[in-house]
Amino acid sequence: MSRLDVFINRMVSQRACLDHAAAATAHLEGPVFELGLGNGRTYHHMRETMGTRPIFVFERAVAAHPDSTPPDDMLILGDVRTTLPRALKRFGPTVALIHADLGGHNLEKNDAFARLVSPLIEPLLATGGLMVSSDRMYFDRLKEQPLPADAVPGRCFIYG
Amino acid sequence: MSRLDVFINRMVSQRACLDHAAAATAHLEGPVFELGLGNGRTYHHMRETMGTRPIFVFERAVAAHPDSTPPDDMLILGDVRTTLPRALKRFGPTVALIHADLGGHNLEKNDAFARLVSPLIEPLLATGGLMVSSDRMYFDRLKEQPLPADAVPGRCFIYG
Repeated sequence: MSRLDVFINRMVSQRACLDHAAAATAHLEGPVFELGLGNGRTYHHMRETMGTRPIFVFERAVAAHPDSTPPDDMLILGDVRTTLPRALKRFGPTVALIHADLGGHNLEKNDAFARLVSPLIEPLLATGGLMVSSDRMYFDRLKEQPLPADAVPGRCFIYG
Repeated sequence: MSRLDVFINRMVSQRACLDHAAAATAHLEGPVFELGLGNGRTYHHMRETMGTRPIFVFERAVAAHPDSTPPDDMLILGDVRTTLPRALKRFGPTVALIHADLGGHNLEKNDAFARLVSPLIEPLLATGGLMVSSDRMYFDRLKEQPLPADAVPGRCFIYG
């Protein structure tokens, strides 16, 4: 399996899991969080598919495609080690859907980062909320959920 | 259609067209050219799927994933406006398969670059050879070929 195959599987799985989680949490009132904007491709997809749901984007510094840059009041700038605890004070455990693609090339670094942010993410999720991640997360209470048919196991994870 | 949808279609189409063109040119003895290495994902796929066929990579400056960096003697460094005419002197019209993903975010720039490199690419291709591109090219003699079933029209082009 080539790096191109792995990458396509990851992108297709990400979309399938996001679409699935968006539908499954559509009845919840709380906001949606996108952790990491990158070039904004996935945020653009969330914007297109999630109608008027409020999507807050957490990012260190914006370097996205102009089409896909969130408005200032929906952008939470800074290191997630600081901004996620602050978001917990602001929003409480109300977030309907959290998406994170931490994925760099270095699998060990991704895993270390997943361990670091998991306890910061877990208390934010509303009852019935879902977390979609390209990496395995380390939660106490949230459980791994079944993937939709289009997703490739190991390329995306859903927790709830 | 979101930017994520467009991107997935482009990646899936690129792989489908490359796999198709690789099979259709497998009987030819000439080399394979990859124009632009990027992070090396597509080159990695070509390496995995094309066995022992010689793949020359044209790139300005290598910034690829270490897994996907070609050996020095298969790397042709420099601006393609210089290196493609030089390659024509070295190889003549013997190239079995040429792949190019010029694709940046700026469609106008991509199109201008496609117009610029098309006449440099055209004389390199062997009889029976194929050119796979993520952008529409501007050839005098080469004709657009039908796409394989998995490819999305407009996201990839095959010429031969």
